[in-house]
Amino acid sequence: MTSQDKIQDDLWADVQQDTAQRLLLAALGLFASRGFHATSTRQIASAAGLSPAAMYVFYRSKAELLFEISRVGHESALRGIETVVARFATPPERMRALVQEFTSWHARHNTLARVAQYELEHLEPQHYEEIASLRRRIAAVVRAELLFGAESGDFNVIDIPRTTLAILSLQIDVARWYSAAGHWSPEELGHTYAELVLRMLQSSKAV
Amino acid sequence: MTSQDKIQDDLWADVQQDTAQRLLLAALGLFASRGFHATSTRQIASAAGLSPAAMYVFYRSKAELLFEISRVGHESALRGIETVVARFATPPERMRALVQEFTSWHARHNTLARVAQYELEHLEPQHYEEIASLRRRIAAVVRAELLFGAESGDFNVIDIPRTTLAILSLQIDVARWYSAAGHWSPEELGHTYAELVLRMLQSSKAV
Repeated sequence: MTSQDKIQDDLWADVQQDTAQRLLLAALGLFASRGFHATSTRQIASAAGLSPAAMYVFYRSKAELLFEISRVGHESALRGIETVVARFATPPERMRALVQEFTSWHARHNTLARVAQYELEHLEPQHYEEIASLRRRIAAVVRAELLFGAESGDFNVIDIPRTTLAILSLQIDVARWYSAAGHWSPEELGHTYAELVLRMLQSSKAV
Repeated sequence: MTSQDKIQDDLWADVQQDTAQRLLLAALGLFASRGFHATSTRQIASAAGLSPAAMYVFYRSKAELLFEISRVGHESALRGIETVVARFATPPERMRALVQEFTSWHARHNTLARVAQYELEHLEPQHYEEIASLRRRIAAVVRAELLFGAESGDFNVIDIPRTTLAILSLQIDVARWYSAAGHWSPEELGHTYAELVLRMLQSSKAV
């Protein structure tokens, strides 16, 4: 988690309390650097400048903090692609906008995305189901665009389920390797990835 | 780690001692399920049916076990792509073979690949450098094939460094989502991914 995440956008805007935000950012930093398993609630409270007892007023467990971080991340990514896709009419324009947005989101929020992706197994069952539902909605946006483009004749898709997964997977993995120290800005990377994805779909407007 | 890894191929063949192999498999299982940080050397020794003192005869620390797991994984993946690429002459054939091999490797050895990819930061500095060198060699194989195909006119590559990274990244992420319970065999997935990558390169032989 870089301080940019907090300053540059309203990712955490629906977390009302400053103290709750501070706890989420502290938990995110610790989960990212030590992993969920090796982080204690005491460490999270301490990093947020609170006693463990004060922390329990906001979150009952570190699993609840993980859920809240994951929920904020998945909702932000989903809202992002729904918003940009709605601005365009043709399948290639919509897919280009989707990939530019989803790729640059994963580059910009790479710490949050890593925790959201790689600590999923530590969610409690009912929380996991909520996150899984958000993930299905994200995949459904991609799948709908592939179907739209296949029907219009703009895309020549090898296999809808595998291509949906490949498009999501390519972009999610940005969170693993991207760091702000890298050579490319989130926007540059989003641009290149959009071209690569349109090529996967053999869109005539790809290059 | 599934028992298939041990039975179906010679991934661990250069680890001579049965006891050393048992320790590596025990460590792999624990790193994969609990994470490196939350795993103790005592747990690893116990899972391998040894005392901690007996374990130290083979490996001095859990970081050394992580290094050995990572080394075996990276060397196997590198050897795999070098071997299959050498069997073909034209850039599209070579790239197809490379992607089929590297993708199916990550599906087949998804537990090993996850540990090798996501626990890198826990390697000791000199070990990290050895693994980083293997990773550079893997990337160099992909980059060389892109240059070969760009020069021959078989490939129309948007940008060599970013496309190299995207091709590797797409396949590495298979380790995150693939499970043997999935719908597709490692070979089926490798076939689809090879088609998608050839499309990224606008190879006329893609479809």
